[in-house]
Amino acid sequence: MLKNVVNIVKIGGNVINDDDQLDTFLEDFAKLEGLKILVHGGGKKATELASQLGLTPKMINGRRITDKEDLEVVTMVYAGLINKNIVAKLQKHNCNAIGLTGADANTIKAHKRIVKEIDYGFAGDIDLVDHSNIKILLDNNLTPIFCAITHNKKGQLLNTNADTIASEVAVGLSREYRVVLTYCFEKNGVLKNIDDDNSVINRINSQDYVSLKKDKIIADGMLPKLENCFYALQHGVSKIIIGNPTLIVNKDQPSTTLIL
Amino acid sequence: MLKNVVNIVKIGGNVINDDDQLDTFLEDFAKLEGLKILVHGGGKKATELASQLGLTPKMINGRRITDKEDLEVVTMVYAGLINKNIVAKLQKHNCNAIGLTGADANTIKAHKRIVKEIDYGFAGDIDLVDHSNIKILLDNNLTPIFCAITHNKKGQLLNTNADTIASEVAVGLSREYRVVLTYCFEKNGVLKNIDDDNSVINRINSQDYVSLKKDKIIADGMLPKLENCFYALQHGVSKIIIGNPTLIVNKDQPSTTLIL
Repeated sequence: MLKNVVNIVKIGGNVINDDDQLDTFLEDFAKLEGLKILVHGGGKKATELASQLGLTPKMINGRRITDKEDLEVVTMVYAGLINKNIVAKLQKHNCNAIGLTGADANTIKAHKRIVKEIDYGFAGDIDLVDHSNIKILLDNNLTPIFCAITHNKKGQLLNTNADTIASEVAVGLSREYRVVLTYCFEKNGVLKNIDDDNSVINRINSQDYVSLKKDKIIADGMLPKLENCFYALQHGVSKIIIGNPTLIVNKDQPSTTLIL
Repeated sequence: MLKNVVNIVKIGGNVINDDDQLDTFLEDFAKLEGLKILVHGGGKKATELASQLGLTPKMINGRRITDKEDLEVVTMVYAGLINKNIVAKLQKHNCNAIGLTGADANTIKAHKRIVKEIDYGFAGDIDLVDHSNIKILLDNNLTPIFCAITHNKKGQLLNTNADTIASEVAVGLSREYRVVLTYCFEKNGVLKNIDDDNSVINRINSQDYVSLKKDKIIADGMLPKLENCFYALQHGVSKIIIGNPTLIVNKDQPSTTLIL
């Protein structure tokens, strides 16, 4: 039987921080036909609120630590302010959105990151995406909007990377659906030359990926992003597209397609 | 055809402000059999956060005004911090909770309160409860957890009284279900003598209510609460129970039952 398609779109802080860009994106997203899911990151608001409350970022070896107060801030900003404003704006455009953390409908179970050298605090690594509860929502024409918060099924909320949420939800749903995952960010795609937004690589398969890593064309922040993507492709996701937010409605927009 | 029963329980700030009381209540609520919905108010955390952010309560003629900054605070605290922690704790007790504002799944549409003498800002008065979307969740064994935020379907979130949300959701669902609405608060029920928690009136019908108002036994804060309740009973809700949070599992606990 041919599987239904689900489009999963992830947006990051760059879209969320700019009201006009966010409005345009949400209007576009609402127009996307068929089953769809949005995953959103945080943006600068959490940092602003933390600073207003006199909290200072806690870093160990360049990695951010989430303590009890930080978790409160991200729960308020991601699951409250950002998620619910996105839902309200999508409802305006007749997209029947429903905002979720991983605790809601037990959709994403995680565990507190294991303490080895660093105790990351309330950072969560995902164990399981419950595709059956997400399917109930999708099958009833609801559009899940995930923020970057999960839970451990023992009553504890956890802060979880939004890119990882997008790829794990994509993997979880690929048993039931043909999943296309789109990562929107500030560039037009994966670039040959990071300073030239016109140097988009149109298509990368697993073999290309190995060469691009070897040649150091893919490096720094793009490396974990693409590791995540190829993990998802290896675990059932059909296709991944990377590019700027306008690509979800403008098919002529340059972008990078990843396949196995 | 006999309608299924839905239990709708509303808790207020007194339960939310006390971690132990909240934990006990949520454990009890998780045990309640059959279809159920929780509606929660705000508690002191929103006031604390507003004060930490240097916002001062805006009052006109003793009524609270919700400006843009206040709306951000209540959206963060009610829909984020409180709602998601309640959901995570219920999940721990194997209650498949899903946290909602009225914007989520377009469940509660409201309008910004009409400006007559006072502009209440982003305060919402409810127009419509979409029982069909709530029914989808209930029929799939999900337990909706509503916070006191609604939307106007034009992209605007609105701050809405939690008692009103409970009664309007109860009325909306009474077309499809036999609805029992329970208001939990700090007293054992409606009291004959407000200083004596043992003076609970066990049963009040519409006629009793008229006499109790006339005799000034029901006055002050209890008056709008009961107006709300009799409105709900007149619009299809089967039964309303008022008492302290332990009554939801302890049937011997004194409480007040309201019927038409």
